[in-house]
Amino acid sequence: MQGLYFDGRQAMLRDDLPVPEPQVHESLVRISLAAICNTDREIMKGYKPDFTGILGHEFVGVVEKSNDPALIGRRVVGEINEGCGECLYCKTGREHHCESRKCIGIARKDGCFAPFMTTATRLLHAVPDNVPDEQAVFAEPLAAALQIPEMVQIRPSEEICVIGDGRLSFLIAQVLALTGAEVTVLGKHEDKLRRFQSFAKTATACDRRFEVVVDAAGSPSGIEAAMKLVRSRGTIVLKSTYAGNTETNLSSIVVNEVSIVGSRCGPFEPAVRLLSRGLLELPPVELHPITDWEKAFASRAFKAGFDFREK
Amino acid sequence: MQGLYFDGRQAMLRDDLPVPEPQVHESLVRISLAAICNTDREIMKGYKPDFTGILGHEFVGVVEKSNDPALIGRRVVGEINEGCGECLYCKTGREHHCESRKCIGIARKDGCFAPFMTTATRLLHAVPDNVPDEQAVFAEPLAAALQIPEMVQIRPSEEICVIGDGRLSFLIAQVLALTGAEVTVLGKHEDKLRRFQSFAKTATACDRRFEVVVDAAGSPSGIEAAMKLVRSRGTIVLKSTYAGNTETNLSSIVVNEVSIVGSRCGPFEPAVRLLSRGLLELPPVELHPITDWEKAFASRAFKAGFDFREK
Repeated sequence: MQGLYFDGRQAMLRDDLPVPEPQVHESLVRISLAAICNTDREIMKGYKPDFTGILGHEFVGVVEKSNDPALIGRRVVGEINEGCGECLYCKTGREHHCESRKCIGIARKDGCFAPFMTTATRLLHAVPDNVPDEQAVFAEPLAAALQIPEMVQIRPSEEICVIGDGRLSFLIAQVLALTGAEVTVLGKHEDKLRRFQSFAKTATACDRRFEVVVDAAGSPSGIEAAMKLVRSRGTIVLKSTYAGNTETNLSSIVVNEVSIVGSRCGPFEPAVRLLSRGLLELPPVELHPITDWEKAFASRAFKAGFDFREK
Repeated sequence: MQGLYFDGRQAMLRDDLPVPEPQVHESLVRISLAAICNTDREIMKGYKPDFTGILGHEFVGVVEKSNDPALIGRRVVGEINEGCGECLYCKTGREHHCESRKCIGIARKDGCFAPFMTTATRLLHAVPDNVPDEQAVFAEPLAAALQIPEMVQIRPSEEICVIGDGRLSFLIAQVLALTGAEVTVLGKHEDKLRRFQSFAKTATACDRRFEVVVDAAGSPSGIEAAMKLVRSRGTIVLKSTYAGNTETNLSSIVVNEVSIVGSRCGPFEPAVRLLSRGLLELPPVELHPITDWEKAFASRAFKAGFDFREK
């Protein structure tokens, strides 16, 4: 089959990839849509030099083979981390942190930028009929947004700030606004900020302070801005990953008793429930054939991806 | 009266200081003992250039005048932060973070390195008769140690690491060990670490990982060590303040979903209860007359301080 393959140094379209065969605990998924995440770009820039395999981890597809007969023929989305099941992390509810975990399209496991993919059956979640593929493909980043209230208590009466006007911020701000809290999104681009205005306040500069500040800016400047925006005894949630170190004044964390919480992948079931209830604004995904992968990666659309469905 | 005064640049013994007169909400405290904290040294090095006044914030004394008649003649210890009572922080239980707070011996208020000091009466806590002055003077740093379980849930089944073998670590490790948790103290000095061995494990190097890591090393190397010692989804508590910025890998906080919690001054009532129950090992305070202040500040004793009691 044809797929977008990363050889540890660069991405390339290959035609010689075998259709994978599921192991006993796995399912074979025929991919319908797959979306590009910034992490895919970071991998292509050298973020995961140990990874070789098919790229991609945001998908919706249909189960073709499975150890769970009830899933065969069902539309599914899927979690990306598969722990070993044996280590301290796996046994204490922290499978996402298993040190030998497989992570589709990122570590030790082929991803979804191809017509077929295998994955552990327990990671799959059936998609309700009322959620179209074009929305279901947002399940993974939406789950990542939901990891914020999973880790930090969001009080509906508190003022919250989200730094960044990109894709992840768009989902984070919506999830947090659903609590009833007043959300202010701080960004650099007036045109991008306009998209947030039905559910959040927006600003390009701000001298107020907030109880919770989410840094989804995707750059090292985010933490510095967050330190100025957070109240004493408030919480900063970090969502951005990027290479290298950042200079921070640690004493001000102590003196102001600030909490900093790192947050990564999140829970799929609530993401699917929110999608099914139609509570989120989701922009259209710009779809390309996999043969146009370079064009898709260069796209400036809010979300770009690949369409594997037969026309 | 005689007192150790800081003029914004340096400390000096002055003989011309007036005995302070309490305001309507204040008490006049005759100081019995006052102890030196590392913050006093940091102020003398330039940490608080805006402060001028009598230094010192760890004390035990006797109330001579007060708006609360029940306190007159009582032995007391005292909290150090007095908020304005009007601002958002004061009105949301965060008086310690009031931006116009007075802090005895540190900001906008004379401290305790003199025979008399005034302070807001509501900040004073009576000392039970069974707690000698030499132990009561530890109330303030002990309260700071207790701010850790005040901010972070300490589970008795979890493994905890305290980085640093100094005075604050000594109190922190004891407070955390009282929960029943296994505490490992990581230090650089075998002789200092020996003092911890009745209540904690000790080590000069460690390749294990912990659910909670407290950085009380007092230097920028502490956070780097803490990042290596903490488990994924674990918590780092920062207790050390020092000047300048520190380089940190923020992406590893996100990927490993680590929480970092800054923690400063703490609750006095539980500190006094623990002192009264005799549950803590407290080394002797090396006492000097205030005239020997330079010798006291140069002392390498575990805790040095000043004795104002009449012989």
